[in-house]
Amino acid sequence: MIKHQKENELIFKRLGIHTQNEHFVYMREDCHVCISEGFEALTRVRITNDNKSIVGSLNVVTTDILKQGEVSLSESAVLALNIKEEEKITVSHLHPIDSLRAIRSKIYGNDLTDKELQEIIKDIVAGNYSTIHLSAFLTACAGYKMKSKEIIGLTKAMINSGKQITWGKSMIVDKHCIGGLPGNRTTPIVVAIVTAFGLTMPKTSSRAITSPAGTADTMEVITKVNLTAKEIKKVVGKEGGCIVWGNTARLSPADDILIRVERALDIDSEGQLIASVLSKKVAAGSNHVIIDMPIGETAKLRSIDAATQLKNEMEKVAHAIGIKIKIIITDGTQPVGRGIGPALEARDILSVLKNKPDAPQDLKERALLLAGELLELSGKVESGDGNNKAREILESGNAYNKFCSICKAQGRFSKPKLAKYQHEIKSEHSGTVIKVDNRKLAKIAKLAGAPNNKTAGLDFLAPIGTKIEKGQVLYIIHAESRGELEYALEYHSTKKDIITIELDTKF
Amino acid sequence: MIKHQKENELIFKRLGIHTQNEHFVYMREDCHVCISEGFEALTRVRITNDNKSIVGSLNVVTTDILKQGEVSLSESAVLALNIKEEEKITVSHLHPIDSLRAIRSKIYGNDLTDKELQEIIKDIVAGNYSTIHLSAFLTACAGYKMKSKEIIGLTKAMINSGKQITWGKSMIVDKHCIGGLPGNRTTPIVVAIVTAFGLTMPKTSSRAITSPAGTADTMEVITKVNLTAKEIKKVVGKEGGCIVWGNTARLSPADDILIRVERALDIDSEGQLIASVLSKKVAAGSNHVIIDMPIGETAKLRSIDAATQLKNEMEKVAHAIGIKIKIIITDGTQPVGRGIGPALEARDILSVLKNKPDAPQDLKERALLLAGELLELSGKVESGDGNNKAREILESGNAYNKFCSICKAQGRFSKPKLAKYQHEIKSEHSGTVIKVDNRKLAKIAKLAGAPNNKTAGLDFLAPIGTKIEKGQVLYIIHAESRGELEYALEYHSTKKDIITIELDTKF
Repeated sequence: MIKHQKENELIFKRLGIHTQNEHFVYMREDCHVCISEGFEALTRVRITNDNKSIVGSLNVVTTDILKQGEVSLSESAVLALNIKEEEKITVSHLHPIDSLRAIRSKIYGNDLTDKELQEIIKDIVAGNYSTIHLSAFLTACAGYKMKSKEIIGLTKAMINSGKQITWGKSMIVDKHCIGGLPGNRTTPIVVAIVTAFGLTMPKTSSRAITSPAGTADTMEVITKVNLTAKEIKKVVGKEGGCIVWGNTARLSPADDILIRVERALDIDSEGQLIASVLSKKVAAGSNHVIIDMPIGETAKLRSIDAATQLKNEMEKVAHAIGIKIKIIITDGTQPVGRGIGPALEARDILSVLKNKPDAPQDLKERALLLAGELLELSGKVESGDGNNKAREILESGNAYNKFCSICKAQGRFSKPKLAKYQHEIKSEHSGTVIKVDNRKLAKIAKLAGAPNNKTAGLDFLAPIGTKIEKGQVLYIIHAESRGELEYALEYHSTKKDIITIELDTKF
Repeated sequence: MIKHQKENELIFKRLGIHTQNEHFVYMREDCHVCISEGFEALTRVRITNDNKSIVGSLNVVTTDILKQGEVSLSESAVLALNIKEEEKITVSHLHPIDSLRAIRSKIYGNDLTDKELQEIIKDIVAGNYSTIHLSAFLTACAGYKMKSKEIIGLTKAMINSGKQITWGKSMIVDKHCIGGLPGNRTTPIVVAIVTAFGLTMPKTSSRAITSPAGTADTMEVITKVNLTAKEIKKVVGKEGGCIVWGNTARLSPADDILIRVERALDIDSEGQLIASVLSKKVAAGSNHVIIDMPIGETAKLRSIDAATQLKNEMEKVAHAIGIKIKIIITDGTQPVGRGIGPALEARDILSVLKNKPDAPQDLKERALLLAGELLELSGKVESGDGNNKAREILESGNAYNKFCSICKAQGRFSKPKLAKYQHEIKSEHSGTVIKVDNRKLAKIAKLAGAPNNKTAGLDFLAPIGTKIEKGQVLYIIHAESRGELEYALEYHSTKKDIITIELDTKF
């Protein structure tokens, strides 16, 4: 297709510019390729070295950071091409991306066919979409605009786009929580319980999308989570389970790319959500799955109607792809546990597993509920006995021992550390806590630096129903830098309804 | 709001990186601001110098193109801040952009209120949206998802976001074509005719969005089009009209930003389209407007239904903002005139204005139709007499003289030049032309380099109904570089239905 390849060759010079997921190409304005090809800033171009080829956005350079005949790439592109300084690359015009036509058609209200969804996901994984295109795809599909058939097609396309692990066992169990509830870090406890029981649970978790921590962020405090598919297999073969980051194993590469844009948009649409969750389950080889679906005014799912709609849709898709599923609707009116942020949540998990007297009981009971349901779904424990069986395993210390073994098999077992800065937020009144804003608490934890700063976040000490004295600590902000502590405090100072206290009335 | 300003100060070093509309900030990974503020690649940050402040996306640098304490900006940001080397800037966290909540609400099917639209447009003009956000806004509103009330709100928000010109005259006339038809460059001819008649027509045009040329691109071949509001006023005061680029006058700054993203998405939604067209009319002070709406299988409007829907919506919005409008549905089955591309269209315009015998008659008649309607809409010419009056002005040479005067008043009067490379596409058969694909012809003109290369494009010589001999030239590709000529030829060679010829049947 591309003639005069030689004429388009340039020498790679590393500038070390990190642009996250979108590939950028840096070329001199007066470079022969720019002139002969008619490239201008933000043209999408194809970059080829030896056999590999990726797509990037052009940035035109008018200073001498590049010399004549040189070209540079953002670090994401350097990684994708595995290129070294002074190697040659070819830059050429991009042929039209056909799958964008399907997105335009979707915008105009037409359904996406299975074939179109396969092509879209293929182009996304190949890096052919710019963030503009990714944003349009996500937006066009959000707001309940995908039919069941389309969500099934999207889920299958995502499954096909990544690797798929097989375990040589007929039953693989898994769990997932439909996010939005700070501190609700039951997964590591559930994995510990059900693997101690003898089920196989190779858990791949995600990092935070819009929350202060994902399970992978939290587990990274305690152990290594970026394992290869081969390493995961070894851990699971030995221990019957793992708790790793799904991304490293490239189980759903399309989802990993889309999630970054969803984060920037702060949307998490039902179709993408179902496809993301279930494609990763299939990719991880799971076939028996428990879904925790917390509902609350400030949780992701705000009403029983929204949850029921998602539940029905998810059950349909699970059925279509051969997954046995049980969806459990839970209380989402306030955070679970005390810590919000990776290290603080890790501390809570360990205290529950160690059966410490001061361990957060709500986190313990939530984990036991889910573990019990999973034991029952497996058919190995009779209906109604799951919770007791799970409690027995946890309180005997067997779950903690199993958790330690899994962490060690994953590469290390470290204790959570404390952030450099703490700041107590105290109540200005006496009374009773009647309402908690999950989103605002999460926002404070994020402004304080979570999840990027592992020890940042907050300790929530005032669950609904707590009797509060004036001056009593409601929550403690943890931050690694003074700047971030101040952002969190500034936000706190402008919001009055983070924790609502009903004042004591004296007679 | 921002404490410790001093700590966040960095020295500006120019790297000369052009990224088009999105602002980028380049900071060292080990820079004290990155560390203390917790910034990572693609964080959105606020950049402040003296009194001005903009928002940009962070790119983190890990080589010595920046020294400790230095920061760089993309050239768009350099321009926006008007900053010089070694000046100080402050980089700080971005406070949440509230209007994004309205976009999320729109994605979930809620209507945008006037207040929300005002806030969205305000944030867009302030540069607070990344391309991801712009793309989500455009996508959420595309596909007939805006109600009349919302389109009116958007139009008013766009009007408020830019400057507005007043002319001290009660009647200002204008015209606009709802794009998609290559070569349909009637505007300069209409302006010449109606201003020669004595009406006031200060025409602000756009550059190409997805086409090979916009009126501004074409007129730039002949005269200066990037005039300030003050300069425009001077030209119109002297000549009664102008044909300038709307962007320089900042008449609809939000639209200028949105158009770049629409181009990348290749969508042009009805709500955005109406708001874009009518806000610019109001900003330009117009109150009597003719709209040319070509319909054809490969035009922007493909059916009478689509055109009627747009016509009705546009009439409602025009009425709401006080514009007297007439919408004329025209033939859009093939290009108008011969040239497609800035310089080639400029040549056609001049030949019509000069009444050359070989001037394209279809372009002439289309211009007379619209000029006649405009004369009638003004009420200064009786209904039914418009076309004759327009013809009289054109054929007398008065229109040409007026056109020359306007161009000179705008700054220059240059003749179109010819591209370095030409390539004739000849028919492989004898027969009659029965169908023309506007989009594919436009695509060839774009691949050949139009509109960025002014003389690039094509000459279309085979309108519907033309009897063609084998070997007769159907069209001529014009290109400024050999690479671009080859892209156009490559595309041509893979498409068989650009010009459909019904073969002669011999008995």
